[in-house]
Amino acid sequence: MGFTARELRSTIESDGRLRLTIDTVDIGDPADDEVIVRVEAAPINPSDLALLLGPADVASLKTVGSGVELTVPEARMGSVRGRIGQSLAVGNEGAGTVIAAGKDAKELEGRLVGMIGGGMFADHRRLRARDVVPLPEGASAADGASLFVNPLTSLGFVETARMEGHKAIVHTAAASNLGQMLQKICLADGVPLVNIVRSEEQAAILRGIGATHVVNSRDEDFDAQLTAAVTETGATIAFDAIGGGTLGSRIVQAMERAAVGRMTDYNRYGSNEFKQLYIYGALDTSPTTLNRLTFGFQWSVSGWLLTPFLQKVGPEVAGRMHKRVLDELKTTFASNYTRTIGLSEALDPEVLRAYERKATGEKFLIDPTRG
Amino acid sequence: MGFTARELRSTIESDGRLRLTIDTVDIGDPADDEVIVRVEAAPINPSDLALLLGPADVASLKTVGSGVELTVPEARMGSVRGRIGQSLAVGNEGAGTVIAAGKDAKELEGRLVGMIGGGMFADHRRLRARDVVPLPEGASAADGASLFVNPLTSLGFVETARMEGHKAIVHTAAASNLGQMLQKICLADGVPLVNIVRSEEQAAILRGIGATHVVNSRDEDFDAQLTAAVTETGATIAFDAIGGGTLGSRIVQAMERAAVGRMTDYNRYGSNEFKQLYIYGALDTSPTTLNRLTFGFQWSVSGWLLTPFLQKVGPEVAGRMHKRVLDELKTTFASNYTRTIGLSEALDPEVLRAYERKATGEKFLIDPTRG
Repeated sequence: MGFTARELRSTIESDGRLRLTIDTVDIGDPADDEVIVRVEAAPINPSDLALLLGPADVASLKTVGSGVELTVPEARMGSVRGRIGQSLAVGNEGAGTVIAAGKDAKELEGRLVGMIGGGMFADHRRLRARDVVPLPEGASAADGASLFVNPLTSLGFVETARMEGHKAIVHTAAASNLGQMLQKICLADGVPLVNIVRSEEQAAILRGIGATHVVNSRDEDFDAQLTAAVTETGATIAFDAIGGGTLGSRIVQAMERAAVGRMTDYNRYGSNEFKQLYIYGALDTSPTTLNRLTFGFQWSVSGWLLTPFLQKVGPEVAGRMHKRVLDELKTTFASNYTRTIGLSEALDPEVLRAYERKATGEKFLIDPTRG
Repeated sequence: MGFTARELRSTIESDGRLRLTIDTVDIGDPADDEVIVRVEAAPINPSDLALLLGPADVASLKTVGSGVELTVPEARMGSVRGRIGQSLAVGNEGAGTVIAAGKDAKELEGRLVGMIGGGMFADHRRLRARDVVPLPEGASAADGASLFVNPLTSLGFVETARMEGHKAIVHTAAASNLGQMLQKICLADGVPLVNIVRSEEQAAILRGIGATHVVNSRDEDFDAQLTAAVTETGATIAFDAIGGGTLGSRIVQAMERAAVGRMTDYNRYGSNEFKQLYIYGALDTSPTTLNRLTFGFQWSVSGWLLTPFLQKVGPEVAGRMHKRVLDELKTTFASNYTRTIGLSEALDPEVLRAYERKATGEKFLIDPTRG
């Protein structure tokens, strides 16, 4: 007996074919400390796309049977060697209703919960009771679908800046859901934030929620504007969702220019101010180019990832962050979805191409109850 | 009255002309806590060249009067804005004989000393007694000329690796004087070291002093060799003198490949092992290109510079490092100079081109007593 689930799965074969299918699988009954959740909302985050589509070439997309198939160019196969032949469930986080519970988790039965743990692009999910969070009164599944990734990441940025002694932050792709959360946190916490966007529309979104420093990377005098904003705020840490190209380098350069502007004597090694660029995304998958000769020697460019960050700060800080997300679910951490799709629709080529674009301001929500 | 000195000086004008001259300047008499040193040996380090020649185009070199002139391309003027119009004395470190001393430094009179503090490409130097170090019995000025930069940097690498929890090190341009010191320290301290060189000659130099891991970046299977060496040693930190291009990226990639090889489960975010690349030089001044999608998320690329490092570790560690340099001056920290030149010769176009090449294995010493 037990429950069954329809799960969206991604498999890369050794010949470079990447298959997306919706498989019906037995997920059994909940153990004593487990629950079965009917998934009602799961956001498509960039990190989900990285698992779903890997480094496949989206132009190669074609329908095969009830699934779709894409090709991973041979040069990119090295980065996915570890997953070849494995059918991987996708979807970091979601929300839904507990429809069955083990004997130690009965209090959750019937509750609307948020959850994290992978495999959320499915109509049902079995997981441990401790991996679900009952949503506050009045919150819908859509409200609770993004309890973890964006809220904890944006809070994590501010925690990181504080822990490492920075007084202001630079953020790229800043009009994203995550970026809007970060702006709201920074306003509430009094941390100056320099937002980098690439259109006036995006700038308007941020100004609409109270942003004061917004610079458009497509403006001709972008570097001068950025240097002015970095000088005014004293920002020495940046979080970059883009990763590829020279934008990160230009941010560090602007910080060094601001720091040198505060110096009175020439130093061939540049300023003594430590500048940190964290790359947390890959909206641009091309290599990162660092014009480091303009940085001085006090700089660092690093990867930033939520899970190791939460491990590093420990349960007390993580708990405080979780509590704040629930307390401010409908304000600071409200997500804005531009389109809700069913599970099967996620494999519709036209829909897939739309959410794969990762356009700022666009955000997809999967509601598996729609089929 | 007072002393005079012939000093090698470098000046960049706002129109991009870089002038090198030997100026005769009054340096006065020593204050109570000062000494006058007759400079007898000063090494030409890459860091000296950065100040001496800035970002000038060496092909533009021409003799003008008793000095030489080079041109800084306009695109590179931004990085030297802070020094325009200033006549800068050059030469980080050197050694020589104390020929006069203030009343609180009389015990130094007649002693052969090593010294740091800039302006060492000069026949005489006035400086504080606390900035000179009497050389041990039997050491010549040439033996004591490089007491600071290379010895403290190579020791600093091993200290940094230890402090940050790494158990083995990767080093580039590894056959340099600094690289040989590092290899000797690592052998003495039992720290595995992977040396990256770009010729068999350089590999032979290192093997001759006991290196076991030497990989040649010009070998066709360099990446495979590097991955094997990194796997065998467990190296997760690298110090890179080159900086430009993709070599640093390939090192981090090899470390990640080694780390993934130790994993049992696939993780889309790569390994949990933290990989650190420190860039401490600029033998290649082109931008740094990071193919970060092959790094996982646990990585950092940073600048490394001796002075802030010494400030960070504090006087106790710095004192221990200084003591070791003096104790092992003629063994671990012996420098090998391939050519000794006079001060005026440093402005001979042919000689200048030769030391500017920064060829591994070649190292110039200035002896201002030669004229």
